[in-house]
Amino acid sequence: MPGFKPKPPREGEVTLDFTPGSDGPGVHFIGRVASPWGPGDCPRNIAKARESGKGAQITLDPAFEPALTGLKVGQPIIVIYWMDHARRDLLVQNPRHTDGVRGTFALRSPARPNPMAQSVVLITSINGATIGIDAIDCFDGTPIIDIKPWLPTIDTPPGL
Amino acid sequence: MPGFKPKPPREGEVTLDFTPGSDGPGVHFIGRVASPWGPGDCPRNIAKARESGKGAQITLDPAFEPALTGLKVGQPIIVIYWMDHARRDLLVQNPRHTDGVRGTFALRSPARPNPMAQSVVLITSINGATIGIDAIDCFDGTPIIDIKPWLPTIDTPPGL
Repeated sequence: MPGFKPKPPREGEVTLDFTPGSDGPGVHFIGRVASPWGPGDCPRNIAKARESGKGAQITLDPAFEPALTGLKVGQPIIVIYWMDHARRDLLVQNPRHTDGVRGTFALRSPARPNPMAQSVVLITSINGATIGIDAIDCFDGTPIIDIKPWLPTIDTPPGL
Repeated sequence: MPGFKPKPPREGEVTLDFTPGSDGPGVHFIGRVASPWGPGDCPRNIAKARESGKGAQITLDPAFEPALTGLKVGQPIIVIYWMDHARRDLLVQNPRHTDGVRGTFALRSPARPNPMAQSVVLITSINGATIGIDAIDCFDGTPIIDIKPWLPTIDTPPGL
């Protein structure tokens, strides 16, 4: 996998010895993120990215442009991307920002069996197969695997 | 793909002639949903599933049990699943519940280039590698690809 150079696990971390995705269906990269961020300066989360005031773009493979029909400027969307630099074998992690270890499924870490991440962002422009968004917290060039309209009835917990 | 029997597109629908996922990384199925639903009676969305009062379960491959460390009963999580019966080639769709056609990325339809769906649900129990959840709107046996903690700062639009 490009860029995948696993470091030794930190104290308390647990890995699984497996070949992730070898028998599952393949994901299709529908486009790429154009963001101001690289490995040295990427914000730790979408709130920090938004505070920077720097927007970003989603550039789809032109073949997918018709699939944007109906999206509107100002609309919230869920952008789902594939963290292709992240390791996939960590079960328990010891992040710097948490107090002690935590399971991968209790964290938003990019390192997970399927290294997908997602943020809810606002559409600021639509031009052909390129969507402007208000912020994103991933590296320039990150592959995108899905875009969904954000819907409060599906995307917020019951009773909230 | 198992169960993939594309019907002719409906009026106004647009397809893309491609082989989805042939050059992307593979997804890894981490477990399966145990739900009361099949193709004949699956609720159209999570709100309808919740109204039924019927809960569901997520059963992970036992190897992933350590990755649940830190999750708690009552906590909202995002369950992400792979709709392995859905076609992947529809760009523009004509759903029965919308007024006219709409692009795939403006819809929550399971038919999409990467046929993943997600719902925000509440954890009702945790026993080993099995999590009880308050509701889900997918078929029994649907493969799960990720679980993430739902976090309002990441998962709601700015200003909401």
